[in-house]
Amino acid sequence: MRAIVIEADWAPRAKTELTPDELERRSALDGTQVWRHPRWSLGQRPDPAIAAEDHIIVRSRAVGICGSDVHMYETDADGYVLLPYKMRMPLVPGHEVAGEVVETGPAVRSLRPGDPVAVETLEYCDRCAACRRGLFNQCANAHDRGFDLDGGMAEYLLTTERHARPLAGVRERFDEQATYEIGALCEPASVAFVGMFVQAGGFLPGSTVTVFGCGPIGLASIALARCAGAARVIAFDPQPVRCQLARDLGADIAYDTGELETAGTTPASRLLEDTRGAGADLVIDASNAGQLVRAQIESALAVGAKVLYLGVTPGSVPMRTMAYQARAASAFGMLGHLGGFDPVIALHAAGRLDLSPIVTARWPLAEAACAIRLAGDRANTKIQLVPDDRVPRVTPNAIWEAAP
Amino acid sequence: MRAIVIEADWAPRAKTELTPDELERRSALDGTQVWRHPRWSLGQRPDPAIAAEDHIIVRSRAVGICGSDVHMYETDADGYVLLPYKMRMPLVPGHEVAGEVVETGPAVRSLRPGDPVAVETLEYCDRCAACRRGLFNQCANAHDRGFDLDGGMAEYLLTTERHARPLAGVRERFDEQATYEIGALCEPASVAFVGMFVQAGGFLPGSTVTVFGCGPIGLASIALARCAGAARVIAFDPQPVRCQLARDLGADIAYDTGELETAGTTPASRLLEDTRGAGADLVIDASNAGQLVRAQIESALAVGAKVLYLGVTPGSVPMRTMAYQARAASAFGMLGHLGGFDPVIALHAAGRLDLSPIVTARWPLAEAACAIRLAGDRANTKIQLVPDDRVPRVTPNAIWEAAP
Amino acid sequence: MRAIVIEADWAPRAKTELTPDELERRSALDGTQVWRHPRWSLGQRPDPAIAAEDHIIVRSRAVGICGSDVHMYETDADGYVLLPYKMRMPLVPGHEVAGEVVETGPAVRSLRPGDPVAVETLEYCDRCAACRRGLFNQCANAHDRGFDLDGGMAEYLLTTERHARPLAGVRERFDEQATYEIGALCEPASVAFVGMFVQAGGFLPGSTVTVFGCGPIGLASIALARCAGAARVIAFDPQPVRCQLARDLGADIAYDTGELETAGTTPASRLLEDTRGAGADLVIDASNAGQLVRAQIESALAVGAKVLYLGVTPGSVPMRTMAYQARAASAFGMLGHLGGFDPVIALHAAGRLDLSPIVTARWPLAEAACAIRLAGDRANTKIQLVPDDRVPRVTPNAIWEAAP
Amino acid sequence: MRAIVIEADWAPRAKTELTPDELERRSALDGTQVWRHPRWSLGQRPDPAIAAEDHIIVRSRAVGICGSDVHMYETDADGYVLLPYKMRMPLVPGHEVAGEVVETGPAVRSLRPGDPVAVETLEYCDRCAACRRGLFNQCANAHDRGFDLDGGMAEYLLTTERHARPLAGVRERFDEQATYEIGALCEPASVAFVGMFVQAGGFLPGSTVTVFGCGPIGLASIALARCAGAARVIAFDPQPVRCQLARDLGADIAYDTGELETAGTTPASRLLEDTRGAGADLVIDASNAGQLVRAQIESALAVGAKVLYLGVTPGSVPMRTMAYQARAASAFGMLGHLGGFDPVIALHAAGRLDLSPIVTARWPLAEAACAIRLAGDRANTKIQLVPDDRVPRVTPNAIWEAAP
Repeated sequence: MRAIVIEADWAPRAKTELTPDELERRSALDGTQVWRHPRWSLGQRPDPAIAAEDHIIVRSRAVGICGSDVHMYETDADGYVLLPYKMRMPLVPGHEVAGEVVETGPAVRSLRPGDPVAVETLEYCDRCAACRRGLFNQCANAHDRGFDLDGGMAEYLLTTERHARPLAGVRERFDEQATYEIGALCEPASVAFVGMFVQAGGFLPGSTVTVFGCGPIGLASIALARCAGAARVIAFDPQPVRCQLARDLGADIAYDTGELETAGTTPASRLLEDTRGAGADLVIDASNAGQLVRAQIESALAVGAKVLYLGVTPGSVPMRTMAYQARAASAFGMLGHLGGFDPVIALHAAGRLDLSPIVTARWPLAEAACAIRLAGDRANTKIQLVPDDRVPRVTPNAIWEAAP
Repeated sequence: MRAIVIEADWAPRAKTELTPDELERRSALDGTQVWRHPRWSLGQRPDPAIAAEDHIIVRSRAVGICGSDVHMYETDADGYVLLPYKMRMPLVPGHEVAGEVVETGPAVRSLRPGDPVAVETLEYCDRCAACRRGLFNQCANAHDRGFDLDGGMAEYLLTTERHARPLAGVRERFDEQATYEIGALCEPASVAFVGMFVQAGGFLPGSTVTVFGCGPIGLASIALARCAGAARVIAFDPQPVRCQLARDLGADIAYDTGELETAGTTPASRLLEDTRGAGADLVIDASNAGQLVRAQIESALAVGAKVLYLGVTPGSVPMRTMAYQARAASAFGMLGHLGGFDPVIALHAAGRLDLSPIVTARWPLAEAACAIRLAGDRANTKIQLVPDDRVPRVTPNAIWEAAP
Repeated sequence: MRAIVIEADWAPRAKTELTPDELERRSALDGTQVWRHPRWSLGQRPDPAIAAEDHIIVRSRAVGICGSDVHMYETDADGYVLLPYKMRMPLVPGHEVAGEVVETGPAVRSLRPGDPVAVETLEYCDRCAACRRGLFNQCANAHDRGFDLDGGMAEYLLTTERHARPLAGVRERFDEQATYEIGALCEPASVAFVGMFVQAGGFLPGSTVTVFGCGPIGLASIALARCAGAARVIAFDPQPVRCQLARDLGADIAYDTGELETAGTTPASRLLEDTRGAGADLVIDASNAGQLVRAQIESALAVGAKVLYLGVTPGSVPMRTMAYQARAASAFGMLGHLGGFDPVIALHAAGRLDLSPIVTARWPLAEAACAIRLAGDRANTKIQLVPDDRVPRVTPNAIWEAAP
Repeated sequence: MRAIVIEADWAPRAKTELTPDELERRSALDGTQVWRHPRWSLGQRPDPAIAAEDHIIVRSRAVGICGSDVHMYETDADGYVLLPYKMRMPLVPGHEVAGEVVETGPAVRSLRPGDPVAVETLEYCDRCAACRRGLFNQCANAHDRGFDLDGGMAEYLLTTERHARPLAGVRERFDEQATYEIGALCEPASVAFVGMFVQAGGFLPGSTVTVFGCGPIGLASIALARCAGAARVIAFDPQPVRCQLARDLGADIAYDTGELETAGTTPASRLLEDTRGAGADLVIDASNAGQLVRAQIESALAVGAKVLYLGVTPGSVPMRTMAYQARAASAFGMLGHLGGFDPVIALHAAGRLDLSPIVTARWPLAEAACAIRLAGDRANTKIQLVPDDRVPRVTPNAIWEAAP
């Protein structure tokens, strides 16, 4: 089958200590320490084959490009990839995948060929302490399709019945292409869902929810907050295009942080003003710039506020603990999508949620190398890859078309 | 001022033991044991006067008639009232009240004459173990306007700044009359809110929420469930008119239980069918007929289901505990409105919620005695009393007009 | 190997409808509907063999006899077994098992031959909606060793690495025999642990915890409540011997309910007196007689009380819902042990908990048929079976010796 | 009456903006901005008098000196006090107080002269948004005895029935002096209790709890963790004397961080080793040195760990958010004691907890100025002031005596 394949040189940095398992499998726990000079290309890979009773083969129909993918393409001054996460090479990337079931193992009962599914890409061990507590996202031995197992940027993808979540309900309400696009958005949307409702325990209806950073996860957070009864959703982003998308997804107010700065004010000031001094009840940091937004968050916490860290800010960020103490606030860290697919799908099937505006461009799989370069510009919100024989729908976002 | 006044005979039943305090204050903890031959009439009461720094006088603009009020009107075979709750006589009833501030004590800062407010009627002691834990609704020494303190079925009502919740935000979005009607709905809506989101801890967005009994509290539960991200809201009621209201308030499906019976099926069967066997995640028993609905609930519990008891079912109801055990289900009891007014108001002010369709009739205060009789028929959902000089709006519910 | 084997006649009752799977596998979901004339005997079964990478073979060293086992021995008037749970015949019973690892599959890393382990007997599917949420105890497709898979009343038992929980830490603090006995108590203790701390969410240190029914699960609840900071643990049981055991396990007060009755008082009265009217914060119904204890519980609920249903009361029990509503109380149902083994073991290893007094008799495996008859008398608290070549320790409970 | 009185000069710093209320009442929200050259002395104040129905006059019997008190004594280079909290002058300090009721207002029913009580010093408004949610510690309008209201370092103290918590139960188990000492420890112990069990939601029995900083709040955290079922309590402090106290209060291991440094290891390494790589489930930062301990905490988080910030670290501390995200960890800020007194007292009355070893020195009230200087050395853990006519008990801590 045709597939996007990343190759790179195995070149462990001088000081890096690798485990025997990393050495044997050439699968690093932190890609930035070993993988150099990555090359993306359209290549050939063997067709996947059913090898276990509960296996399923899925034809990829929509695959999102994530910031993590970009970090497997971009390099530092020494030529090393930027992604500080598990990576095995050569690799078929793609961990935001939806497609059509084409073949099922003998024990599979809930799915049949032709069924549209979204694919959970985290393969947990079901054996470690975290798995035994049901905290699969924190599995100590997990593998992750698109990182250290082949992912979805290919014609076909192997997964299991357990990880293939049916999109039939979504299909009843959306057209075929939108169904797959929503399916491929389940992964980033689930990061938001699990963080907000499972890890942070949600919020009382009537609350003020604030989102910093309007990339796909931030936008999904906005839509979910609106859907779950926030009285007010306030968003912040430095890009006007993303602010407009935030409004489209349900933000009552979306502030262009550049404009705020020009106007000599701050996000915290606006938040306090908009809430008559009460502050925000739930704040989601979905930016990758914690060093810029945390002080703002800390200055506008409501009593009993929750802060959720979803963005990826490398290194350390200054935290004014006393701000949390004085307001009896709490903070929640989360990474992972398991636990979010089913409710995100149910909300779409019920017509309560529509995340499809998050997708702002569609490219054929064969041109993934171009698309990844474009994604690197961060101007698009979410680019998805579609099969080469599918003419991409014209992007419907007027605001996007109008963007420079 | 003019006021509705209930008088009754103090006639403790033979076996009833009263506390010294009950005897001294002639204020029974259980009205059914002492108050006989109640008489409702339009009478005169002294105008309330500011007597403490934080006092507020409110001109009643909308006062709901509740089932509890009916139980202070209706009697058993021996002539005793039906309400098994605290009652002092003579009494101005009315505990679902909104109105206009007309005078404020010297320490009041957040309110001014002319401000529209909804009134929390439970006056807690701030001293007992429950109050010290913030569980004001369970105060051991509470007094309750409309029950053992004069309530809102009068021209004016005395309360405190703390208990008068501002409706200014609602007024920005609704007209004057609707603002007061929504204000007077805050009490029953808060019973639903506090039960669902505080006591039962809410539900995950994407859940199936089921409501048995579509009176005002049930209808508010439906609207709140929809507002807070339920993927599916399924309601049951024996009255077709209420089923239609359930749909208007946001139920995806509302089953007429009489029709189900005729069709030879049961609520539990329908629930299991509608959820493909999964069952309901949150079930609210807002009926006053637990003996009829509980077995249905127990047969359609989802794994991890929550059941919330909000209706008033006297005596005992059979419970099949094993049903809860097998599904790891939990059950929550709740009574009380404190904690719900602010979010219910915020949701209306934000345009996320509109409970006004719950009000199906408006009567002038002077005709309260007629209205209470009508309310006794249980055909109307919520009758509100309005000042005599306000011509009631024509009831807008077509479905109601069409009812026999 | 030698094993206790139950055989019975497959004789579906007239009205019983069985699924194709039940018919094909002769494995009933409700044993009372099909299995008649059960016979327990000491027989031979093939030695278990490693068949999967993560398999483990365990030599049984202590196996508890549970009420469920007795219900597979006792019959109703028509000769049908009493256990309304999944049952396959012929069956090696035994679901409270600890033993010594004798062989491990090639992928097993955390265990070696000789290691003492306690065995989790519930085998979940890891695929259904409940499993995907981590609620393994509610797995829709679970099999259960000792019920529809062969259990531990045999020389050897097959399980997996994931289900074999290491007892090495316990062994550092207890002697060999006690280690295995504690291991075999993990199952009933975990039912208490998961119910109290996972499902019901625990209690605040300083609370009053009350336990009705002092069988093994009730006794474990008492010890766990004491261990987790209850200021007062109050127990009720009709048997004086069990009341004494309750005190040994940590109850501050243990009331003989027969004595209370003779004295003309009730558990509720005592509870209210002992708590100066405040009532109990957490109440655990570990009796199998809900119809007797629930009214007592409902009359002595603290504000915000939690009630946990752990006992097995067949049919329906009257519930006075209004008692829960007036006190903002909640109730939790639970069945299942997964999630409790690790903390129960850790608490023993740390010297914080010692459940070993729960075991009141030890019998050789070969005499299981006698032991099961004795267990049917319910006079012993927990009888455990040990290998025939191990001379049982003399039962150390003086109080037990003294019992009639 | 005799009282310790602090006087200081009202000298607002140049850039400080004060509210009209601060100016009028000469009561600063941040003492460091206005109060200069503080003088502590033994002076005279009018005897307090009952002025409201629920007032109570308490004779001080034990008053703890807290770090906050020291910060009202010590000054910066410009002579300003160090306490960044509300302060009014002249002031009787003392917010950790227990004593004997000497007079009660006419509405007081639960207390009588002679009763021993501990005094909650935070006076909340019962009116703001936080109070209406029961979050009294975050009251927007609170006054605080010992800070902006006269506190307990005097012969007598005025409070209300609601704030005076009865110690009768403690007195049944401890001698008179110990009863008052424990009473005066309720405040710091409640900061630990409310943080751990209310704000952070507690921990599962069997967990590993780690405490950084073994001052009074840290020591109380250790004892409470032990009492609530931690399988392992691990403490860190730079002072050997405090490490020994940590062991006395229940720590399984207490590491002297200076020794660790000398040995070339770190707290994080020890924690990971002691937990076989699992990390700590609940970590309490009760140090005032977040900049030193946070990186250690972040390197040893268990999956699902909770971190509780109780210490007072000024300014900002680097936080590696990704550590929280990767482990699904959460963090909780808390300040305040309301909600903790009753359970702390109940645990002492039940014999489950004994915090009295925290008190390491007792000084007569008249010598408070000396005592405060000694407290400034931070060598003692908790110094309490006792009435001048009570000969202080000889300090029983051998380890303390032995300290240089």
